[in-house]
Amino acid sequence: LTPLIDVHCHVVPKSFPEDPTGGSAPWPSVRCAACQTKAEVFMGDRAFRAIDDRSWDPARRIADMDADGVTLQVLSPMPELLSYWLPPEASSAALARVNETIASMVQARPDRFAGLGAVPLQDPELAARDLGSLKRDLGLRGVEVGSNVLGAYLGDPRFEPFFAAAEAEGMAVFVHALHPISGKDVSPMLAPFAAFPVDTALCAASLIMAGVLERYPNLRIGFSHGGGALAPLIHRMEFGWSATKGFDGRLPQSPKAYARKLYLDSLVYDGAYLAHLTELAPGRVFLGTDYPYLIQQPHPRAFLEEAGAPASAFAAAAQSFLGLPHG
Amino acid sequence: LTPLIDVHCHVVPKSFPEDPTGGSAPWPSVRCAACQTKAEVFMGDRAFRAIDDRSWDPARRIADMDADGVTLQVLSPMPELLSYWLPPEASSAALARVNETIASMVQARPDRFAGLGAVPLQDPELAARDLGSLKRDLGLRGVEVGSNVLGAYLGDPRFEPFFAAAEAEGMAVFVHALHPISGKDVSPMLAPFAAFPVDTALCAASLIMAGVLERYPNLRIGFSHGGGALAPLIHRMEFGWSATKGFDGRLPQSPKAYARKLYLDSLVYDGAYLAHLTELAPGRVFLGTDYPYLIQQPHPRAFLEEAGAPASAFAAAAQSFLGLPHG
Repeated sequence: LTPLIDVHCHVVPKSFPEDPTGGSAPWPSVRCAACQTKAEVFMGDRAFRAIDDRSWDPARRIADMDADGVTLQVLSPMPELLSYWLPPEASSAALARVNETIASMVQARPDRFAGLGAVPLQDPELAARDLGSLKRDLGLRGVEVGSNVLGAYLGDPRFEPFFAAAEAEGMAVFVHALHPISGKDVSPMLAPFAAFPVDTALCAASLIMAGVLERYPNLRIGFSHGGGALAPLIHRMEFGWSATKGFDGRLPQSPKAYARKLYLDSLVYDGAYLAHLTELAPGRVFLGTDYPYLIQQPHPRAFLEEAGAPASAFAAAAQSFLGLPHG
Repeated sequence: LTPLIDVHCHVVPKSFPEDPTGGSAPWPSVRCAACQTKAEVFMGDRAFRAIDDRSWDPARRIADMDADGVTLQVLSPMPELLSYWLPPEASSAALARVNETIASMVQARPDRFAGLGAVPLQDPELAARDLGSLKRDLGLRGVEVGSNVLGAYLGDPRFEPFFAAAEAEGMAVFVHALHPISGKDVSPMLAPFAAFPVDTALCAASLIMAGVLERYPNLRIGFSHGGGALAPLIHRMEFGWSATKGFDGRLPQSPKAYARKLYLDSLVYDGAYLAHLTELAPGRVFLGTDYPYLIQQPHPRAFLEEAGAPASAFAAAAQSFLGLPHG
């Protein structure tokens, strides 16, 4: 069997340092009664999510990976832990625990885990500086970032230092929806299913339109959930680019040309739509499952087969994204 | 050749009545110097769009239809004319001019035109009452509506009387993006290409989630631009519906089951994505071109062929949507 590399799965450390902010902003913590297998994540005083040992226990994860045929998990923080709403230094303290947890899991089983860390992107210069030590001191392959940071999509000029450093260091950037700006104006039940993919798509569109992919051609950037609602936006942007002579000369290449430089995960819940993404970004779609959460993709190998592309193509895309040796 | 029925193309009357509001809200007007072929639409004092005789001249339209192989145009108002921001009675006065213009074009050439009118949906009871006279007095097949009305998506309970009347009268409802609520938080250049399809998709998702399609099973409702960014949202909603036992029992059928009841136009600018929509809503996708605007679909027959479905399937979907005889 060809390898299956799951680039979208999340980790929560079993504990966090004491809140250094005095409660001025939501600091993450993990509380538990029966701490062996169950716990609850709090953001400040607010209960955020019930979790279990799949979030922190490498042996439990490897057993599940074996059951699903997953060769390698690329561990990333539960997105809420990105903590952009904390003062940057406090963020760094919380993220240090997250990054060290992921790094230690990878160091113990480098045959089964690789890691993406996190940086305080609310301070892009600080985030840029942190990338080097995540790579050299912790052996991480890249970072997970939110689709927007405190209300600004990643195409905003403030993030240029971060993208310059990510390209220079060869650190992969994995974008995940977080506190959506757009798409919230629907019923509360619908918001998780609509606002997240909308925010991811608008983030990707903002990066294309702002020329980030033009200025950093070697940046390796991937989007969770297949870029969310990205594909139909790209088609419309492509037509608009042609109809407006490149948006009045502002964008040298066409949106589809930039879309082919993006990586996308496979977590789109529909085989035919996944096949469409493999046409939009050939060789750039990798497996993502959202393990261990509610909307996790079950039977990942069978799902990839629905798209009609070989599993080896998804593994090769993951290896390219992460800078891992192929084969 | 099989018929080509273009369900998405717009009309602007050559003149409007005097503003009855005293300038308190943007009243539509058409100003021109060389009025034979060129004009400009104003909303209040704001220049909105330069138009030409394609917007009002049936002979010019028919010549273009013949060149493109379009058999029948289903005329609808330029969306900005929907005028939801006017007091309802003022809206009705502006819309009466729009509806009469469309009806007269249809009455002159019923072999080449059918018509969708407009109702003051900011007053859903009034809008519901107007539907009957649009059908009986003007011979219109349905109405065009905005994706949101003054910031409320169409799944909002306030619109129930309108949908009940549309189903009872057998009037088709064609949804077009208008003043998007969501997706504006991107660069101004990107907004027209991203915010419109996002708003259309969230409108459709809100209708599904609110149970409108459950309560009005015979409602014929179509979405411009292929539902915007709808397909990836439907896939995620479908998975969420399964994972949450029907959103905790609130939605009896699955989102994909409701999606198969929607009509969608073909204006998605990508043949492979169009093919995907024909799988999502089999027999429910009809041709739409956005004639006569900048992002108009050229060579419509060739574009439909890219999707791999026969042109007759798109024509049959249009006939079903409009209640026209088949064949």
